Amino acid sequence: MKRITIEKDVLKNNNDIAKRNREFLKNNNIFTINLLGSPGAGKTSVLEKIIDNITLNYNMAVIEGDLYTTKDAMRIEKHNIDVLQVNTGGACHLDASMIQKSLNYINTQQLDFLVIENIGNLVCPASYDLSEDIKVLVTSVTEGNDKPLKYPSMFQRSSVVILNKIDMLELTDFDKEEFYKDIYSINRDIKVFEISCRSNEGIKELSDYFINRIKNKKSRQY
Amino acid sequence: MKRITIEKDVLKNNNDIAKRNREFLKNNNIFTINLLGSPGAGKTSVLEKIIDNITLNYNMAVIEGDLYTTKDAMRIEKHNIDVLQVNTGGACHLDASMIQKSLNYINTQQLDFLVIENIGNLVCPASYDLSEDIKVLVTSVTEGNDKPLKYPSMFQRSSVVILNKIDMLELTDFDKEEFYKDIYSINRDIKVFEISCRSNEGIKELSDYFINRIKNKKSRQY
Repeated sequence: MKRITIEKDVLKNNNDIAKRNREFLKNNNIFTINLLGSPGAGKTSVLEKIIDNITLNYNMAVIEGDLYTTKDAMRIEKHNIDVLQVNTGGACHLDASMIQKSLNYINTQQLDFLVIENIGNLVCPASYDLSEDIKVLVTSVTEGNDKPLKYPSMFQRSSVVILNKIDMLELTDFDKEEFYKDIYSINRDIKVFEISCRSNEGIKELSDYFINRIKNKKSRQY
Repeated sequence: MKRITIEKDVLKNNNDIAKRNREFLKNNNIFTINLLGSPGAGKTSVLEKIIDNITLNYNMAVIEGDLYTTKDAMRIEKHNIDVLQVNTGGACHLDASMIQKSLNYINTQQLDFLVIENIGNLVCPASYDLSEDIKVLVTSVTEGNDKPLKYPSMFQRSSVVILNKIDMLELTDFDKEEFYKDIYSINRDIKVFEISCRSNEGIKELSDYFINRIKNKKSRQY
């Protein structure tokens, strides 16, 4: 079987575009996150929970990645913020060129916080720089505590892990001690928030963390 | 940005190898499933639950796909059946050439049932024929009921859906009516088993289904 590899070129092209996007986002002081996670980990639910806290003082927009549907964008739209749907038509991750195009459709003049919700996938999105400041990974206790070692690239490249559905902890075999041991063995600088979108546990702390990052980004303006 | 597409060739190569594998599996009357699902949907747990029922009368082997670890294979090994770990080194799906190689390491002489547990991913594995008789998709109520429309290729190509963690139904917003409406709109012939690996609900029915398929495959032998 003959096979050629083009991944290197694709990633180089992606990185070049991401660099240009990043320059633009930096010049406009827009704190940007790449929101990652398995299908059903709760990425959209987490966003819905923090929007009100963030938008008290800051402007926020969301780029929603999905294979075909507009389901998540419709959920976000109800919260009265700018949301743009990007459909990949089956592709398993967003790339920097999609973000480049998306930025033409978002009002970036007064924007403080941009969230890019990636495709639900713990493998492919890890390799694609979307010009974010940080990668934020949502994982849930119902998925099991073995995910860090099974999908290490994701945990290695993320600055923040949101451990969601913590209200269901007692109903699962999730071993928190092992989870923390594993994530720190992969990435000792990773920050973890334990939250529940159902009980609201940890939502305030998570919102405050993002608000601080937004403030820091803006303070570099002067 | 210049980009060439090689997906077509890769898929053709894959299909050619899958065809040869399928011929071999058919000649040996080995009923084969490609077990799919999100990370944490419960693919390995489902296997652990049905092994004892199947192996009362039939020989079973498992090919365990994983990016890097042997965690799932070690779980299956405890049940005293033949298990082979395939590590993709980061690749997001198994392919037919991996199965071709794996078949050299499995005792296929007396084998009745081969399970190929794919990488946890609802996107990429959908396109790769692994020479299975059927694709079986595990999804769980804690992932939400929106998965069929969000990842339609998976549901379209699967013959069986295992709706896992049904014991947690009341603790989630999972809308069963919508779920069934959506899956049948994508694939009207799909068979659904509602199960719980915790309460054992539906495990017997699921095991019986596989046993019948194994029997049917063997009966074609003569």
